[in-house]
Amino acid sequence: MEDIYEKVMELAKRRGFVWPSSECYGSVAGLIDYGPLGAGMKRRIENIWRDFYVIREGFFEIECPTIGPEPVFIASGHVGGFSDKMCRCPECGEYLRADHIVEGCLEGSAALMQKEDLEEALRDFPCPACGETLGAPTVFDFNLMFETAIGPGSQRKGYLRPETAQGIFTDFGRLLRFYRDKLPFGAVQIGKSYRNEISPRQGMIRLREFSQAEAEIFVHPEKKQHPSFSRYASYTLPLLGSSQQESGEPPLEVTMADAVASGLVANEYVAYYLALTHDLLVSIGITPEKLRFRQHLPDERAHYAIDCWDAEVHSDRFGWVETVGIADRTDYDLRAHARHSGESFTVFIQFTEPRRVKQVRISPKMGIMGPKFRGKAKAILEMLKTASPGPDGVEIILDGETILITPDLYDVCEEEVEVRGEEVMPHVIEPSYGIDRMIYGVLEHTYAEEMVEGEVRKVLRLPTAVAPVQVSVLPLMNRDGLEGAAREIYLTLLTHRIFAIYDDSGAIGRRYRRQDEIGTPFAVTIDYDTLEDGTVTIRDRDSMEQVRCPADHLVATLSALISGSITFESLQT
Amino acid sequence: MEDIYEKVMELAKRRGFVWPSSECYGSVAGLIDYGPLGAGMKRRIENIWRDFYVIREGFFEIECPTIGPEPVFIASGHVGGFSDKMCRCPECGEYLRADHIVEGCLEGSAALMQKEDLEEALRDFPCPACGETLGAPTVFDFNLMFETAIGPGSQRKGYLRPETAQGIFTDFGRLLRFYRDKLPFGAVQIGKSYRNEISPRQGMIRLREFSQAEAEIFVHPEKKQHPSFSRYASYTLPLLGSSQQESGEPPLEVTMADAVASGLVANEYVAYYLALTHDLLVSIGITPEKLRFRQHLPDERAHYAIDCWDAEVHSDRFGWVETVGIADRTDYDLRAHARHSGESFTVFIQFTEPRRVKQVRISPKMGIMGPKFRGKAKAILEMLKTASPGPDGVEIILDGETILITPDLYDVCEEEVEVRGEEVMPHVIEPSYGIDRMIYGVLEHTYAEEMVEGEVRKVLRLPTAVAPVQVSVLPLMNRDGLEGAAREIYLTLLTHRIFAIYDDSGAIGRRYRRQDEIGTPFAVTIDYDTLEDGTVTIRDRDSMEQVRCPADHLVATLSALISGSITFESLQT
Repeated sequence: MEDIYEKVMELAKRRGFVWPSSECYGSVAGLIDYGPLGAGMKRRIENIWRDFYVIREGFFEIECPTIGPEPVFIASGHVGGFSDKMCRCPECGEYLRADHIVEGCLEGSAALMQKEDLEEALRDFPCPACGETLGAPTVFDFNLMFETAIGPGSQRKGYLRPETAQGIFTDFGRLLRFYRDKLPFGAVQIGKSYRNEISPRQGMIRLREFSQAEAEIFVHPEKKQHPSFSRYASYTLPLLGSSQQESGEPPLEVTMADAVASGLVANEYVAYYLALTHDLLVSIGITPEKLRFRQHLPDERAHYAIDCWDAEVHSDRFGWVETVGIADRTDYDLRAHARHSGESFTVFIQFTEPRRVKQVRISPKMGIMGPKFRGKAKAILEMLKTASPGPDGVEIILDGETILITPDLYDVCEEEVEVRGEEVMPHVIEPSYGIDRMIYGVLEHTYAEEMVEGEVRKVLRLPTAVAPVQVSVLPLMNRDGLEGAAREIYLTLLTHRIFAIYDDSGAIGRRYRRQDEIGTPFAVTIDYDTLEDGTVTIRDRDSMEQVRCPADHLVATLSALISGSITFESLQT
Repeated sequence: MEDIYEKVMELAKRRGFVWPSSECYGSVAGLIDYGPLGAGMKRRIENIWRDFYVIREGFFEIECPTIGPEPVFIASGHVGGFSDKMCRCPECGEYLRADHIVEGCLEGSAALMQKEDLEEALRDFPCPACGETLGAPTVFDFNLMFETAIGPGSQRKGYLRPETAQGIFTDFGRLLRFYRDKLPFGAVQIGKSYRNEISPRQGMIRLREFSQAEAEIFVHPEKKQHPSFSRYASYTLPLLGSSQQESGEPPLEVTMADAVASGLVANEYVAYYLALTHDLLVSIGITPEKLRFRQHLPDERAHYAIDCWDAEVHSDRFGWVETVGIADRTDYDLRAHARHSGESFTVFIQFTEPRRVKQVRISPKMGIMGPKFRGKAKAILEMLKTASPGPDGVEIILDGETILITPDLYDVCEEEVEVRGEEVMPHVIEPSYGIDRMIYGVLEHTYAEEMVEGEVRKVLRLPTAVAPVQVSVLPLMNRDGLEGAAREIYLTLLTHRIFAIYDDSGAIGRRYRRQDEIGTPFAVTIDYDTLEDGTVTIRDRDSMEQVRCPADHLVATLSALISGSITFESLQT
């Protein structure tokens, strides 16, 4: 029996939402094209995301290249550790994602298994490609970054970014200046990211090239109270904490204030973005009953993260799908880039009033140092200015050479100095959205079939703000001047930035069904009464009810319906 | 002396429009980041482009991956021919773009020179990197596509697309169905494209990763009258045709109707998009006097193109910069993909009424064919159904073998059949925009310095629709309740989707200058009168004039100013 996935994808391909990429050459797994309707819907969802994050939160968007030089991804840890466990079928030679084959068939998470255990576990499994038994194939790591060479001569290795975040981290210094050296501040990025998946077989859910919307919010490590927390303090969410998961309990329905107070969620920042994410996902058409927030278990959470949650969207085909990740990543990323680049990734935070602090300072004995170190003396003296003495002296590294400056070479003075503030390395709160998974979730959740007059009506109940086409303009007949009047209305709507399409082909009932299938919320029909009394009908997609409306009120009425300032029901009375 | 390029880029970096990418690791030539203001400006320009092409022209946008499999780019010709001529300095080993070194120093275009001539020409030139004489270095082709491997085991070669267009061409069949099998139709794409430049040294003008906005319009080869040509028929443009260039004449100022009638421009489609491009570029802030349209010379035009024009934007630093290309590419691209993929890239065009046509049909003599060709006979008979006989018979190719079917093996019958229409391979009209060059052009053309009260005022005279920040909200002082009133106004503007920033740091004059530098068209100042009588001032960036406005009219007034429905001058009376 067809499941909803097949129905949704059939409609999506046929009507122009999504289809496989470069089909005429045989499509490539993990690469899809957004067709005319899908791209329109995607842009609307991205703009809703911007409404939440750019306009409302005030986080400016930046745009970095998708290609980055190797040092960025060495520092970020992706060159070393961004890999999946792979094996090869000894029979057909197919490359396979080792943990996916055994996932769900063993106790615990296959993703966390050691290579040796995986090899053993795979022994009796059949190859998903050819069906032969795998034996115990060798399991090895496959780095998921797409690699390329920048410039001629392959001098410089580059990678396609696996996430947009690193561009924001490496721009930290410039962004800090843009925000005038104050915390907290945030920056966001919407764009393509890439993961060279071993064997993607899940349609829009596992793509090799996908769109992310990420926010990186830089906060003072000791001030994790969100300035607008009151907005979501009493917002209730289904939270599946790690302890609920471990004891097999259902999600807790709690307010964000309680979640923070009870320690279920680490801090106000994380809680605030959990709630905002729920708010955003529901507004684009995700069914609330098919949305939950699951905390990472201690063994799946990155070692540096204080807290990490996934917004999971339920799919009939794929189960709970991780769609948004919200994490407190501490100063892990900035610290890594500071270490690798040698630049400072800190903010100078001024104290409310200057503090007097005792400071230990090294005062070198110049008479001994000079002759002893000769040419290096000057550089050593410079480095001693900021060094702290240990019991055996001070170790300094000069041109790669470690030099021990023994205590006989300097005096130590303690002095009280006035300190105006301190250098602080911010913590990062990161909400990270997978746009393609959001789009798939919306398609699946809004897809409906119902019997109307003995026929199946397929309808996408897309929210008006998300529907790629807002209004269809339909002359009842393609004659008698109806088509002229309809075209005029169509052009008027476009002029007022109402995205309309004009359709005059086929019986009116068929045209309504076509619009239902692509989720167009309103249809305007021009009939013989239009020519008589200047009224048109507006049909509502969901109720299939119609009201008459004077053509010269149409722009205002449709604008109000689209913005949500009036409801269709209010027009019916 | 600093030229305007240095001034513009200094401002752009300092204020957050653009800066080098991954600076903390040493930036990579040809990769830039759009900072908070640049990304905002870019998004606005892209949306204006969508207004022109998606909403007004009705061409739907699609979104294809930036990675494509090799067969696409073999068919498109990029694997074979998308390369630049490169040489290496024998002294320092630097890779150099060979034609760029000699460009402008010889007669004619270096880009068109043969390798041998380039080698000879380079003999006495100094290396741009180290200054040593190049000798006559070997010149070779360097393919400009970034290469990568899709999936594990490097089984499948992939490239980063060098243009967005190929995704639209390969989707032709699906798009044709979406548009219900009718011509003309168009599809557009805005996104990243990539060229692995040998040695990019021109800032935003020559990027390795850049943004394109391309429209591909599929038209009947014999119907190149644009349905809305009247819109631009009397629009006048400076056209530098190939004959003007050859005879050293200045551009002709002609209407589009005249340009088509005189044969200067090949057809209405090309002329229409020349005018639309002018309209669009001027609306985003390109100075009309610094914009011209130059026709490709016969030797620079692609052999298949019927006509090709560049919109060139003048830069004080770079001269005339090709920013938009508008070409009639004929059926070259579709034909190439049809040949390589084996799929059909045609449209069935129904005749107004069926035509009766004489058709020559081959009627094989079965009694001879069967014994003669035995196992192959069936396949041969099938192929003869659609073959046309020549004087020596029919050549058919079966499994790579050419077989001549001599006339003694068949009869020829002529019959009259009814034909309802024909398969037509559309021609493609392609306007292709370089978004980054547009942005640089706008920055350079809108940058101004003027003396105000004895100080230099730097100002970006960005059109309101392009300015990244629309309104700044400034409390006169950061005390006495002014800052509270100002914050309230700021939040109200955001709620109404007016993109505002709040700035309370520094003297009011300095804050105005800061906003002038980033091109913010309007500043709202909250002063002591605001607390008394509820009015605020609105300051106009360009005239620096101010008017008072009741705070509760502010949203309406600013919205009208931003949309252009009223002018600032009209408020002053």
